Amino acid sequence: MIKRRQTKTATAGTVKLGSKYPIVIQSMVKAATTDVAGCVKQINALTAAGAGLVRLAVPTRLDSEGFAKIVRKVNVPLIADIHFSAERAIEAIEGGAAKIRLNPGNIKSRDDIFRIIDCAKAHKIAIRIGINEASIRDLSQDTPYRQRTKLMIKEMDGYVRLFEKRGFDNIVLSVKSSDVLRTIESNKAIAEKFDYPIHLGLTHAGLAEDALIPASVALGALLHQGIGDTIRISIAGDPVGEVEIGKKILAALELYELNEPQLIVCPTCGRCQWDLVGFAQQVKKYLAGIHKPIRVAVMGCIVNGPGEAADADVAVCAAADKGFIYKKGKKIGMAKKSQLFAALKKEIESF
Amino acid sequence: MIKRRQTKTATAGTVKLGSKYPIVIQSMVKAATTDVAGCVKQINALTAAGAGLVRLAVPTRLDSEGFAKIVRKVNVPLIADIHFSAERAIEAIEGGAAKIRLNPGNIKSRDDIFRIIDCAKAHKIAIRIGINEASIRDLSQDTPYRQRTKLMIKEMDGYVRLFEKRGFDNIVLSVKSSDVLRTIESNKAIAEKFDYPIHLGLTHAGLAEDALIPASVALGALLHQGIGDTIRISIAGDPVGEVEIGKKILAALELYELNEPQLIVCPTCGRCQWDLVGFAQQVKKYLAGIHKPIRVAVMGCIVNGPGEAADADVAVCAAADKGFIYKKGKKIGMAKKSQLFAALKKEIESF
Repeated sequence: MIKRRQTKTATAGTVKLGSKYPIVIQSMVKAATTDVAGCVKQINALTAAGAGLVRLAVPTRLDSEGFAKIVRKVNVPLIADIHFSAERAIEAIEGGAAKIRLNPGNIKSRDDIFRIIDCAKAHKIAIRIGINEASIRDLSQDTPYRQRTKLMIKEMDGYVRLFEKRGFDNIVLSVKSSDVLRTIESNKAIAEKFDYPIHLGLTHAGLAEDALIPASVALGALLHQGIGDTIRISIAGDPVGEVEIGKKILAALELYELNEPQLIVCPTCGRCQWDLVGFAQQVKKYLAGIHKPIRVAVMGCIVNGPGEAADADVAVCAAADKGFIYKKGKKIGMAKKSQLFAALKKEIESF
Repeated sequence: MIKRRQTKTATAGTVKLGSKYPIVIQSMVKAATTDVAGCVKQINALTAAGAGLVRLAVPTRLDSEGFAKIVRKVNVPLIADIHFSAERAIEAIEGGAAKIRLNPGNIKSRDDIFRIIDCAKAHKIAIRIGINEASIRDLSQDTPYRQRTKLMIKEMDGYVRLFEKRGFDNIVLSVKSSDVLRTIESNKAIAEKFDYPIHLGLTHAGLAEDALIPASVALGALLHQGIGDTIRISIAGDPVGEVEIGKKILAALELYELNEPQLIVCPTCGRCQWDLVGFAQQVKKYLAGIHKPIRVAVMGCIVNGPGEAADADVAVCAAADKGFIYKKGKKIGMAKKSQLFAALKKEIESF
């Protein structure tokens, strides 16, 4: 239902990025890149969770060597995260990176940037031009709000021209901030200005419990407007959590199909006559072992119960001391409270 | 920074709703309305958490009596949630409701609707015309996606005309669905069509852990477009959680000021040389006892560390076995890893 913003296609190994392709969820390895076995393990966990691209930091020459070894041990295209050093970029590309993330702002000279571009071109890999508000030059605490977004866009504009002049267009763009409004505004601005795929993320969002809401708000607002071709959720913690959250944000907007049950539960109010939340938790626990896209509704009264049941595959609508069971919107039975969970389970199993 | 959609003002007792006023967070009591003491306790917890309006169900005549008693025991304007019965609506209004939520679709006759409107007018209270996808007539599982939104808008249009014809305009509108995309689309449609304040919510969103992301995505997308004058987060569980989530969604978009610290943490990667997540958790635990709007950043390396520090009130940037401390963007000291937490604490305390 969401109309994606039309973009060019960027190619990172076997993965294509852009409006012609599904949105790719990516994450970043949190182990040192010199720890080859540790990185491979984390990459495998990330791909099993649904990551289509995985990024690694390569701050030292030893990391570059680790990176090249890891590339040969995994099936997913890898991205090298480059800062400060053209050498690291070239080592990573020669070591098999499918894409590099580059913040040209911290590469010393224009010649170094050209060396990186030429190497990427020769190896047919993608470059993400990744600008981060926290690494924008000329930005201080006194820089006014509006100015910050403008500075990021201006910097991006200069880099894109530079890359294009050098004959390179296998490009993905990102402008990140830890501020939700600036993330939305600056991404809207680059989405209007350029037709390259966009990598979305709210950076430095914090511990998982703090990051969840701001990341969902920022990415939700942008994705709903068709902006975003690959996403990375930034949380301080297990990167598999980043992929899980990313999947749920995309799924909420029907941009990703979770092969998992969905549990609709009414919030309950003074009309509800039994412990519906406890019942819903019991259902949720049971559904954790079911891996099919079934929509289950647990409703507390007749106000919206039958209506949500009509929209669910299987539903329960509570009454005083019993519950009604619905299948595909049709009332198919009734059970006493004590027998309702078993009856619901039976219907879900046979669905 | 967000430009609110221009609306009329609705008045619910001491609370004003509309674009001239801050967005009001509301929630609903989950105890039976006959349990006066239980309801008062929950209402006080909700207002202490930040709710500006609280709603209660009044399904029976005894609930109406409870409602009238509760009104006299609390300071926050109360909303009565009305379904099926004009009598309950009139009892609630006469009992002191500041606003009622009405789904005219389940009130038997037009005359009954007029009786409710006339009573609300006489008592100068507001009415939310609350349409719910699950209670739309003529809607079945076969109703195509687009048609569902259209049916909701068509129904809303009929009701608004009916209320206006009867000379009543102290109106708030809501169109709710448990589906994120339909919630966004139908609210955008009524925002374009009418200039009454809008009550936003994703209904039946489920248990807190399931509701968080879809509610943030749906409300984030709408609020960022300036749509929404009062919000209610629907979770199956403690309603105080609904208010907390609502505050965080609004705060992410700078529509609410949380008088709490904000903790920025980099997600860490192969560049980070110590357990930053553990350190951040320690900081988070300490900040839970601090009630002032201070921005603290905990960063893992020099790539974005100094930049985020420039945007924070107090920051730590990790190096190999030590950390640098920043205050308002200026590096003010260095401490060994083991002494860093104490040093950071000192700076936060004195801020």
